[in-house]
Amino acid sequence: MALKNKKSNFSEWYTEVIQSAELADYTNVSGAMVLRPNSYSIWESIQNYLNSRFKRDGVRNAYFPMFIPEKLLKKESKHIEGFAPEVAWVTHAGKSKLKEKLAVRPTSETIMYDSYSKWIRSWKDLPLRLNQWVNVVRWEFKHPTPFLRTREFLWQEGHSVFATKEEADKEAFKMSRIYRDTYEKLMAVPVLEGLKSDKEKFAGADYSISLETLMPDGKAIQACTSHHLGQNFSKPFKISFLDKNEKREFGWQNSWGFTTRSLGVMIAVHGDDKGLVLPPRVAPNKVVIIPILFKGKEAPVLKAANALKKSLNKYGVILDDREGYSAGRKFNDWEVRGIPLRIEIGPRDVQNKSVVIARRDTSEKVTVKVSKLDSTVLSMLKSMHSDMFDRAKKNLMDSIVDVDSVSGLKKVVSSGKIARAYWCGSVSSEDEIKRKTGAKSLNSELRASVRSKSCFVTGGDAKYLTYFGKSY
Amino acid sequence: MALKNKKSNFSEWYTEVIQSAELADYTNVSGAMVLRPNSYSIWESIQNYLNSRFKRDGVRNAYFPMFIPEKLLKKESKHIEGFAPEVAWVTHAGKSKLKEKLAVRPTSETIMYDSYSKWIRSWKDLPLRLNQWVNVVRWEFKHPTPFLRTREFLWQEGHSVFATKEEADKEAFKMSRIYRDTYEKLMAVPVLEGLKSDKEKFAGADYSISLETLMPDGKAIQACTSHHLGQNFSKPFKISFLDKNEKREFGWQNSWGFTTRSLGVMIAVHGDDKGLVLPPRVAPNKVVIIPILFKGKEAPVLKAANALKKSLNKYGVILDDREGYSAGRKFNDWEVRGIPLRIEIGPRDVQNKSVVIARRDTSEKVTVKVSKLDSTVLSMLKSMHSDMFDRAKKNLMDSIVDVDSVSGLKKVVSSGKIARAYWCGSVSSEDEIKRKTGAKSLNSELRASVRSKSCFVTGGDAKYLTYFGKSY
Repeated sequence: MALKNKKSNFSEWYTEVIQSAELADYTNVSGAMVLRPNSYSIWESIQNYLNSRFKRDGVRNAYFPMFIPEKLLKKESKHIEGFAPEVAWVTHAGKSKLKEKLAVRPTSETIMYDSYSKWIRSWKDLPLRLNQWVNVVRWEFKHPTPFLRTREFLWQEGHSVFATKEEADKEAFKMSRIYRDTYEKLMAVPVLEGLKSDKEKFAGADYSISLETLMPDGKAIQACTSHHLGQNFSKPFKISFLDKNEKREFGWQNSWGFTTRSLGVMIAVHGDDKGLVLPPRVAPNKVVIIPILFKGKEAPVLKAANALKKSLNKYGVILDDREGYSAGRKFNDWEVRGIPLRIEIGPRDVQNKSVVIARRDTSEKVTVKVSKLDSTVLSMLKSMHSDMFDRAKKNLMDSIVDVDSVSGLKKVVSSGKIARAYWCGSVSSEDEIKRKTGAKSLNSELRASVRSKSCFVTGGDAKYLTYFGKSY
Repeated sequence: MALKNKKSNFSEWYTEVIQSAELADYTNVSGAMVLRPNSYSIWESIQNYLNSRFKRDGVRNAYFPMFIPEKLLKKESKHIEGFAPEVAWVTHAGKSKLKEKLAVRPTSETIMYDSYSKWIRSWKDLPLRLNQWVNVVRWEFKHPTPFLRTREFLWQEGHSVFATKEEADKEAFKMSRIYRDTYEKLMAVPVLEGLKSDKEKFAGADYSISLETLMPDGKAIQACTSHHLGQNFSKPFKISFLDKNEKREFGWQNSWGFTTRSLGVMIAVHGDDKGLVLPPRVAPNKVVIIPILFKGKEAPVLKAANALKKSLNKYGVILDDREGYSAGRKFNDWEVRGIPLRIEIGPRDVQNKSVVIARRDTSEKVTVKVSKLDSTVLSMLKSMHSDMFDRAKKNLMDSIVDVDSVSGLKKVVSSGKIARAYWCGSVSSEDEIKRKTGAKSLNSELRASVRSKSCFVTGGDAKYLTYFGKSY
């Protein structure tokens, strides 16, 4: 496969790998894309993982309408300010003009909380913790990129109400932890977990926790977010309850979301010049078997390959027994699609009761007795996950450079790295950084000690140890 | 629970049961509703069932954009004619007017087939069989009813392309069979499977197979459909391929869909004056345990109840150990929600190592030794499913009356039953039936013999044995 070089030509490489691996395709609607089965099935793996974590934690799934009446969307002033420029509006049905125009949800706080205010009466109704898996639309005018920035995308959005701020805080961080596990333990993508700045936090949040990582082109990317909304929505939406002392209180709220952008991050972090490399745990098909066929000797090889397929069923194994394709072409087809392990079996292997296994990430090949196949596959998948994670983690860590001046920060982010600095966090200093360097704050370490540290911009007291970068 | 009487007041009963069982709720958007966790979790059971059937059959999931440019929607003339009056149009993004207005998908043939035409080149690319789980919008102006008729609803839509009509035909009927299994084997709802008339078939189909059933108010309802599209779309969308002889051919297509309407049908068919009755196989929570607590004797009962919960985990068991609620209140709460089996355990039961199990559908109660609990639960759930299905099936069969005249048909459908008659199937005779009786054709038996039978309207040769009814 003649893909562009990932290192020197990331953006062309990215576009090519998505097309060649049949992950996504463009459509007639600018900025919208098709998630083809090869990417949607990875999204299903992510859904399964998140659903099981959410449900174990007591969150329930639901579905709220996609259309939000304009006046509802406007109820929280910062929220509408943040989203209004990107809202797609439905104005007509059939040939009739609607009385009130309807927003296609850019996020569902307002439509959900309108219902929440009806359902919550007493402390007994709390906590209320619902999640939905839906499509959302944000009509951005920036250049669209498959998965990373599209006008319609898929996500889950969780929305909760608690009786106390303490419970809400705890959940906001717990959800961020679940997201981090999804990136690191499922997708082998290392992330920086931290607080967004006041300038960059969610429109309507008290604070936002984000995961950030570095893309191969040296730009950072926000991987997902968990927001504590305080009482910013519960007050205008009148989400209140009688507490145990019969006193009326407003609820404390969170919202948290994880999107199909994660697929783009994973593709970018792990792919190589041969195509996609799928982290084993998220790969719906972890193994492909390719029979090496010689004329007249097909039958025993195909028989053995079918037996292998049966025995490896739990790995979502694919047997590529297509006729009219050479083994080389088949190797290539599955390499570009990133299947973690390839098993080759030819006439000699059948005789020797062995197979050859090749790892997609390292190209390492081993010959294994069929009797040891299952345990070998298991351990190879395990090492592949941790090797992929370790390599990506080292790369991320190597890209973080401590700085103590704005000019130092500029140098670092211009070289495609992430700068880290002690910072006061003010909106005015962030504006200054942006103006002088083109960089944004990514997020700030959750547990850094900033005692007696000074802000690298203002020289005043530092409040945060913060990551900065050029950003998607 | 003081619900309205289902038999005499179906429509109020239906609205009440949906509210009381917390299945759905209205919103500020007319005709759109919230699927609350109690109904969404049933939808997830249906999704799991259908996904496993589809995937086993080789169908893959994907996701296509929700917005369809006007010119794409117009490519197949009958299709746009059928859907245009109900399309919600996006005309603006932020403050900008869009160059071309975008339809919110009422169904996805046009957007999907535009991609299909790019992906399909050779017979080797066939069959192409994709499914997506999405929301769709049809801005109907009829009175909305939760689940049964809403302007936004959830569904899966499968879209396939085959090299030959024979393969496509086979799949269209196979999908209808899978849907029938979903209704009958999962939801215990009996259905009539048959062909839609030319007047009632899908806009753009060669033929449509539907499942129909009878609602408690004597109106029939279309439960789902599987369409054979012939080459009606493949020609305007240029979905063509080179066959094995290097000849260019157009593909043969199907589309098939199953919606959240099914939840409304299930609620209506099985519910009773105490609330929802959930068919066991589709119930996410099949068993609820209610400890009967007496002051000072709570500990051993709660301990035993917790042990039961653990042992019945695979049934999605709920332990209702809420404080401050009486056992009677709890019985009622779970009855209205339709949980199939209730297990009661009090101090005497703990002593006797037994529990009481009550069946939601019949109110039948049995005392069982804890040692026999698992097998008893299993067999009670099994009989509950088949009893529920048998009762509903008998009711459906008893409601079908053979007729041989239009006036006879009018009498039958006016009494809330389904009429069956030999029929020629012509659009003009269907128009006449509609005008004279208010009834529509539902569908026609797939395997009826019509030899030497005459049409009950025209007296000409009959082609079908057809069901007619007043209809949703």
